[in-house]
Amino acid sequence: MVTLLSDFGLTDPYVGIMKGAIAQINPDLTVIDLTHQIPPQNLWAARFALMSAYAYFPVGTVHVAVVDPGVGSRRRAIALAFGADPQQPTGFLVGPDNGLFCGVLSQVSVLQAVELANSNYWRTSQPSATFHGRDIFAPVGAHLASGVPLSDLGPTLSADNLVRLPIPAPTDQFVAHERVITGCIQAIDHFGNLITSIPASAVQGQSWMVQFDNQVLAGQRTYSDSTVGDLVALVGSHGWVEIAVNGGNAQQKLGLDWGHTVQVRVKDAA
Amino acid sequence: MVTLLSDFGLTDPYVGIMKGAIAQINPDLTVIDLTHQIPPQNLWAARFALMSAYAYFPVGTVHVAVVDPGVGSRRRAIALAFGADPQQPTGFLVGPDNGLFCGVLSQVSVLQAVELANSNYWRTSQPSATFHGRDIFAPVGAHLASGVPLSDLGPTLSADNLVRLPIPAPTDQFVAHERVITGCIQAIDHFGNLITSIPASAVQGQSWMVQFDNQVLAGQRTYSDSTVGDLVALVGSHGWVEIAVNGGNAQQKLGLDWGHTVQVRVKDAA
Amino acid sequence: MVTLLSDFGLTDPYVGIMKGAIAQINPDLTVIDLTHQIPPQNLWAARFALMSAYAYFPVGTVHVAVVDPGVGSRRRAIALAFGADPQQPTGFLVGPDNGLFCGVLSQVSVLQAVELANSNYWRTSQPSATFHGRDIFAPVGAHLASGVPLSDLGPTLSADNLVRLPIPAPTDQFVAHERVITGCIQAIDHFGNLITSIPASAVQGQSWMVQFDNQVLAGQRTYSDSTVGDLVALVGSHGWVEIAVNGGNAQQKLGLDWGHTVQVRVKDAA
Repeated sequence: MVTLLSDFGLTDPYVGIMKGAIAQINPDLTVIDLTHQIPPQNLWAARFALMSAYAYFPVGTVHVAVVDPGVGSRRRAIALAFGADPQQPTGFLVGPDNGLFCGVLSQVSVLQAVELANSNYWRTSQPSATFHGRDIFAPVGAHLASGVPLSDLGPTLSADNLVRLPIPAPTDQFVAHERVITGCIQAIDHFGNLITSIPASAVQGQSWMVQFDNQVLAGQRTYSDSTVGDLVALVGSHGWVEIAVNGGNAQQKLGLDWGHTVQVRVKDAA
Repeated sequence: MVTLLSDFGLTDPYVGIMKGAIAQINPDLTVIDLTHQIPPQNLWAARFALMSAYAYFPVGTVHVAVVDPGVGSRRRAIALAFGADPQQPTGFLVGPDNGLFCGVLSQVSVLQAVELANSNYWRTSQPSATFHGRDIFAPVGAHLASGVPLSDLGPTLSADNLVRLPIPAPTDQFVAHERVITGCIQAIDHFGNLITSIPASAVQGQSWMVQFDNQVLAGQRTYSDSTVGDLVALVGSHGWVEIAVNGGNAQQKLGLDWGHTVQVRVKDAA
Repeated sequence: MVTLLSDFGLTDPYVGIMKGAIAQINPDLTVIDLTHQIPPQNLWAARFALMSAYAYFPVGTVHVAVVDPGVGSRRRAIALAFGADPQQPTGFLVGPDNGLFCGVLSQVSVLQAVELANSNYWRTSQPSATFHGRDIFAPVGAHLASGVPLSDLGPTLSADNLVRLPIPAPTDQFVAHERVITGCIQAIDHFGNLITSIPASAVQGQSWMVQFDNQVLAGQRTYSDSTVGDLVALVGSHGWVEIAVNGGNAQQKLGLDWGHTVQVRVKDAA
């Protein structure tokens, strides 16, 4: 099984062409689209979509991600296996080394990472300067999903040296009987919901507030506790603290952007 | 085979995640998208899309529909089998009990309906408050399509008590040598075509007119009988009387909305 | 394997219905979307998308294309096999005879072409007046991909009489030690890149300029040689000379449209 994620949109046949390139290698693979409507070159959005989706796929799924502002420049092309068992990786990631995998990598262990240097597994040894999805990433993903060992694809890389986006892990401090967790808006979905980097585990079963700029919102369990137009702080389906507007668009209402600082305050249970 | 219909759009990876959840249960299922661009929470549009599509799928297809304004509230989650033969249902419907199945149900017989109470067939016994598509409906659909009996999914419901949308069946009367059929606009497609609830069978082979507000249009067979910009009344490919604009958008031109009353007048052949 | 291309969009369930109609004939076929967001009735865009994609699919793939302004009128419905070996065609094309295949046909040899007159291979012998994708083209494509011989679908046509769009082959002349190739903008992708009809082979390894109206741009290899907002002339991933704006939309910036004349000037190496 192969998944595809890109910022190609669905207007031009780029996505269909990648699927054709996969089928030319192995017509029996199942290919599932994660999304092809990542905002153009938005690595934060690509990182979050991959991080939100990878855990819902069968063991051994190959995730090919092509959001690639640096295509044609010297950025590296990589593939890696993650999970606990080198004999049966949980999954594989294939794409440019530009940080779009750093969300998944914050949650899993890398078993092995390689640079895609072996052009035997590309569609052509003369890839175009602008469409590595067709010429390198989709073919490599198809070969991986068909059983080619990762180590055949190129030389091993240190997982510590992979590019990461500047999204810090949330920090924790205790202030006046409250636990204060500082994070940021790590993603904005197409409903305009603001998804923070603060995980559900920090607030579940607790009494909590979310704070940004000069606003404070009490955390609640569902939209049902609010009326249309209300700002709502809740744990979203992705497992993060979110800020939303019941029936509306929180990004538009608040004017907050990717990376904006958000704090969660949890009452000290002691 | 499983079909998916939702209002999730294709920007976020929600649809890909539902497909992953299905593949984790049975990677050999074929999954076909009906559409994921139902206008947000528009149950009329979801009802019409399902009603237009279900008959074109193989026997036994499971249709999973997730347009679910009440997610997280007390609305029921249901599954049902329809057709004539309890040993081989024509198809299955899985989704919230909020009326989105009432179009299909106006055309078929329910063999059995159940409430989705058995969490053994969910992805998790602790579903999120906002994404039952991933946690309940897609997994249940995958199990059904893999051969799990409907009755294992939960207690049987009376098909008479399922929620229906307030779309009345068309009514018929004879006035001054004309048959007058009163219906409504039951759907508006993305071309802006106004699709009434009056079936093709009422007008086929007849001389007929359509009337709304103070306007009257003569029914015709194809767009070819008109020129660009003309209002046209014809039988559309879905099998209903439609109002369209040749090369244009009838909804914008006429300002009519979902549910608006429309009449068809058929000359008395006698 | 079957590919689908249309201008139906993804909002209404038309595409899902075509896939259902295919699955009713043969549920084991793999169906890949090229795109369904061809601008409504834009045959130039459909021609270019098909021409760009067909070569990336396995031998024997059936491409069903439904951009069909003439549906319901007397335009012919056709299918054809292309390639070098009549025993194993490279691929098949199925759709209306309105010119959308002329791009592929400029690159391949037709082995046999037929008119779709045999209604045994349609979904119904009474097709709707407006949805031949569902009633004729998708079913015929499914039968072809399942092994039905092309000659069973209807009487043979002369490939010379198929409709072609008015897109001339580029012309060549030598002027003052320069090779001057005159072509046109044959497509505009959703990034606004202007794709000319002048092939990469005309400029590769050469020093070249592109000229339109009163503007001249030097050809370069990648976007990396420019800064954001710059107009760029380069060979795109489809294998044609393109005019683009680094990080922007060339169509909007230049106001050029489909079919506009463009010249490439290549320095005489001699």
